[in-house]
Amino acid sequence: MPVSPSLAARIVGIADPGDPRVADYRDIRDRDLVARGGFIAEGTVVLDHLLRSTRFRPTSLFLLKSRVAGLDARLSRVPPDVPIYVAERPVMDQVAGFAVHRGVLAHAMDRRAGDAPGGTGADTDRDAGEPRDLQGFLESSRRKGGPLVVAIGLANHDNVGAIFRNAAAFGASGVVLDATSCHPLYRKAIRVAVGTSLTLPFHHGAPADAIVERLEASGHHPLALSPRGRRRLAEMTGKPGLALVLGSEGGGLPERLMRRAETVRIEMAPGIDSLNVATAAAIVLARLYSAA
Amino acid sequence: MPVSPSLAARIVGIADPGDPRVADYRDIRDRDLVARGGFIAEGTVVLDHLLRSTRFRPTSLFLLKSRVAGLDARLSRVPPDVPIYVAERPVMDQVAGFAVHRGVLAHAMDRRAGDAPGGTGADTDRDAGEPRDLQGFLESSRRKGGPLVVAIGLANHDNVGAIFRNAAAFGASGVVLDATSCHPLYRKAIRVAVGTSLTLPFHHGAPADAIVERLEASGHHPLALSPRGRRRLAEMTGKPGLALVLGSEGGGLPERLMRRAETVRIEMAPGIDSLNVATAAAIVLARLYSAA
Repeated sequence: MPVSPSLAARIVGIADPGDPRVADYRDIRDRDLVARGGFIAEGTVVLDHLLRSTRFRPTSLFLLKSRVAGLDARLSRVPPDVPIYVAERPVMDQVAGFAVHRGVLAHAMDRRAGDAPGGTGADTDRDAGEPRDLQGFLESSRRKGGPLVVAIGLANHDNVGAIFRNAAAFGASGVVLDATSCHPLYRKAIRVAVGTSLTLPFHHGAPADAIVERLEASGHHPLALSPRGRRRLAEMTGKPGLALVLGSEGGGLPERLMRRAETVRIEMAPGIDSLNVATAAAIVLARLYSAA
Repeated sequence: MPVSPSLAARIVGIADPGDPRVADYRDIRDRDLVARGGFIAEGTVVLDHLLRSTRFRPTSLFLLKSRVAGLDARLSRVPPDVPIYVAERPVMDQVAGFAVHRGVLAHAMDRRAGDAPGGTGADTDRDAGEPRDLQGFLESSRRKGGPLVVAIGLANHDNVGAIFRNAAAFGASGVVLDATSCHPLYRKAIRVAVGTSLTLPFHHGAPADAIVERLEASGHHPLALSPRGRRRLAEMTGKPGLALVLGSEGGGLPERLMRRAETVRIEMAPGIDSLNVATAAAIVLARLYSAA
């Protein structure tokens, strides 16, 4: 399949793994990227989410040469000021520091990054479309409808990614992750989320106590999921403003929350006391979605 | 914590990574182990399942020295003819060929392994407690009650492991995996299954067509899970002999099955067309379990 002339004109060949133009892809370290407001998106499905996102924008693409022709239609949606770097596999793998099986990477930025910390401007970023402070985020989520998903102490990238995928599947309004949960823009989390973390609004980094306190203030009804939950899921019906609160399998949820919130358990076979947290969330969200 | 004298007497120290007594743990290759009817169990929870299993028996344990004292009670349940090898971390990691974070490994065998292929003896292995041929397995599963879970073309170890964990959580009678699905005793699958693959009966290796054909002959009602399913999950009620059939996200299920079986879909938000297969299975099994 030939590459269209308009696409061919945009492509920048990279032959030297040391080329500074692909520095954003060098030895990809999630922590460093995310600290700068950036991240790496991998694969075509994730790229599609990135191109639809209002909060994130691609700053460049880095593709395996053999993949370019097949991506023609998709690449036509990449803004014209975004460079498209292309390399052969050995160069690409050497830059990234791992085998880039899919051959499709994009570096992207949060449109909010680079603003003064603390925000001298408006609290709602017009470009990003969602408020950046927790209170504003919660209020905006409450207005949208659909359950909110709240993660406390979820440090596993797979679990955080899977929670986004499941939240998106069942119409959640957004995801709030506390400061001890892993960042949803780590590469592996984005991959497991199948890119939904780029389109489903999220807030990351507030202390758990502040989240618990502000949930109710913003009109949410916290529903804590726990093997010790007082109500059976089968008895639950959805209601507006539900916030499904998830804790780690080891640590569980803050006692204050367990005392104050409605708590729910999923009934399981005798002798089994837990499910994967993202799977448990999916079971609850699926039930609330089909009961709505 | 001191080690009890009875345990101390059983411990065999390993100082040389080349020691032939720990050959089963050397550069662990799932494929080779499973071809011989063996596998490696990792971590204490998986070890507990192994010690409860009727089908599998440990042939040896290999532990990090620092873990031994804390495992005293558990190790007293290990049959007395099973050697307990102990090493310092550098030796253990060098033998295994990876960093054994948990410091707890066991090599185990299927009690059926080593019998003449084709079986000159009885088709039901008294030690193993379950029939080894597909027809017998399906009939036994049908008598037990609880849904059967059938996996076709599931090559991902995480997904297969998670399917076992979810099947066990919701009272499934067993799991059937076709020949193109990955073996549930690969180390990573056992870990994600949290050991349930050692206690929940399974049959692996029959061709998909034979499975589809024999499901009905054994009195099962196949229920194929697919985004194209004709019925909504919310309309479903459980019935005895249900066999939940799962296909890969890419390949889907055989057309013959989709035509003949009852088919069900999980309703999702617009624009989302799939869930992780193990998550989708959990949603269906949880509903059948709570509706039973």
